[in-house]
Amino acid sequence: MSLLVIGTVALDNVKTPHGARRGLLGGSAAHFCMSARLFTNVHLVAVVGKDFPRKHIQFLKRQGVDTSSLIEGDGKTFQWDGEYKKEDLNSALTLATELGVLVGFEPRVAHHQKKLPNVFLANIDPDIQMGLLKMIQRPKLIGLDSMNLWINHKRESLVKLMKHVDLFVANDGEARALTEERNLIKAAKKLRRMGPKMIVVKKGEHGVLFYCDDFMFSFPAYPVEEVVDPTGAGDTFAGGLMGYLSTVKKFNERELKKAALYGTVLASFNVQGFGMSKTAPLKLTQVHQRMKHLIKFISH
Amino acid sequence: MSLLVIGTVALDNVKTPHGARRGLLGGSAAHFCMSARLFTNVHLVAVVGKDFPRKHIQFLKRQGVDTSSLIEGDGKTFQWDGEYKKEDLNSALTLATELGVLVGFEPRVAHHQKKLPNVFLANIDPDIQMGLLKMIQRPKLIGLDSMNLWINHKRESLVKLMKHVDLFVANDGEARALTEERNLIKAAKKLRRMGPKMIVVKKGEHGVLFYCDDFMFSFPAYPVEEVVDPTGAGDTFAGGLMGYLSTVKKFNERELKKAALYGTVLASFNVQGFGMSKTAPLKLTQVHQRMKHLIKFISH
Repeated sequence: MSLLVIGTVALDNVKTPHGARRGLLGGSAAHFCMSARLFTNVHLVAVVGKDFPRKHIQFLKRQGVDTSSLIEGDGKTFQWDGEYKKEDLNSALTLATELGVLVGFEPRVAHHQKKLPNVFLANIDPDIQMGLLKMIQRPKLIGLDSMNLWINHKRESLVKLMKHVDLFVANDGEARALTEERNLIKAAKKLRRMGPKMIVVKKGEHGVLFYCDDFMFSFPAYPVEEVVDPTGAGDTFAGGLMGYLSTVKKFNERELKKAALYGTVLASFNVQGFGMSKTAPLKLTQVHQRMKHLIKFISH
Repeated sequence: MSLLVIGTVALDNVKTPHGARRGLLGGSAAHFCMSARLFTNVHLVAVVGKDFPRKHIQFLKRQGVDTSSLIEGDGKTFQWDGEYKKEDLNSALTLATELGVLVGFEPRVAHHQKKLPNVFLANIDPDIQMGLLKMIQRPKLIGLDSMNLWINHKRESLVKLMKHVDLFVANDGEARALTEERNLIKAAKKLRRMGPKMIVVKKGEHGVLFYCDDFMFSFPAYPVEEVVDPTGAGDTFAGGLMGYLSTVKKFNERELKKAALYGTVLASFNVQGFGMSKTAPLKLTQVHQRMKHLIKFISH
């Protein structure tokens, strides 16, 4: 069943120990689409500027993404300049951020998208995320991601929003910042009490922790030796997770574990190249091949 | 089959967010014994001082540890003063170290211990570890642990020693320091090329990574909400790993995975109390109970 995502579409300038790239297609929603599209029809709600290369829009369409609600604002596309140092490829240093058309972005949703059964609120201002939720009929599954910026500066909006979602995705730093708990299991339990029934803590190279009232589980990350560019790994993970969940009937332990494994595999492809260079050409058969390796790697 | 361990026996003064304790029985070899004894007969090679409480020796004997080669040196017992801060329970701050009888310690091995089939060189000066190896007949399995102090100050001795062992256990920081590789898979491969056929990287709250030429695997840590005192968790892990391996015929993937899971479970008990308060009373049935939970937690 189809999946709608709201978030950012960006032009990224990235520097890592493996080199530098400018003008990469990036942003939370774009990276999300690139893995979710492998499982289901994905509808993108986002804004770009007048400078946004047409080839990127063509590319998204070719990948099967419904761009009916990708609007062109008056101004420049959101731009992110980041760097990863050799010592810690897990955390990005933001060198510059130009919000551009993100300022004052009012999402629009086409008529045929208002009843989509699965929705993901990828990282963007929580007020914008809430604005989208108000425009659509209550879907079957709502997922949410955020970031430290909003935890620190729009905590109230975020906390309010959390009461309306089913699944919350956070990296370890965000989970700790939002709950003021160092221990991730305690942090996950606190996040659960804030609203969402399902909590997914992404730990980067250390894998993932899932928590809900009935069970919890954890998987290590897929073993990648050469991390080229981790930008968008968390969004790519969320795309695999939500993409797979959009195809299942019941969110039971078996399906949630499978969804987390898909997210893990997709994130591992993402970090092996700049931007979407490794996720864009992916076919599901390659994902399944790597899934087999992952399962051997984690089986007891 | 029996297992001989050389390492430190210490009196620990520990401070954690859960309180402070003085004069705890500690040290790498003592913590190792406390979990290895659940699987096999353990022989302890170590030195204590004239101040070492007789009750600790009685305690070790009651736990089934062969103390024939636990000698009393002329001076004070090795003492470690450490603290763990709330922000990072994974890493200890050493406040003070009094080597005492460790200085000039020359291990002795009783006649009946010279042909024991399994040996673990727990953390202690690599020259002392090498001294022990020279005193015994080539065992079936030799494991080795070390620490940053020796990596930095006795690197040459440690590197030489690594060529003589089968299994090397290191935490993530040590693996990185010894190989100058940030990526743990690359680090494990480099450690393999330094000699030991089997590499075990302990990642604390993030679990364990195992590497050998034929396969690799990773498990998350057992989910513990209240970490009371992590002192000795790595040694307790090694005791479970080596203890179980001492009972198996072939070091194949299945048995090595099981050994790593035993180590994981035992380390989780260790961190839940000060010193050996949680590992000393343990019976194998409790270990198996927790093993069931762990397997549910990590199964795909």
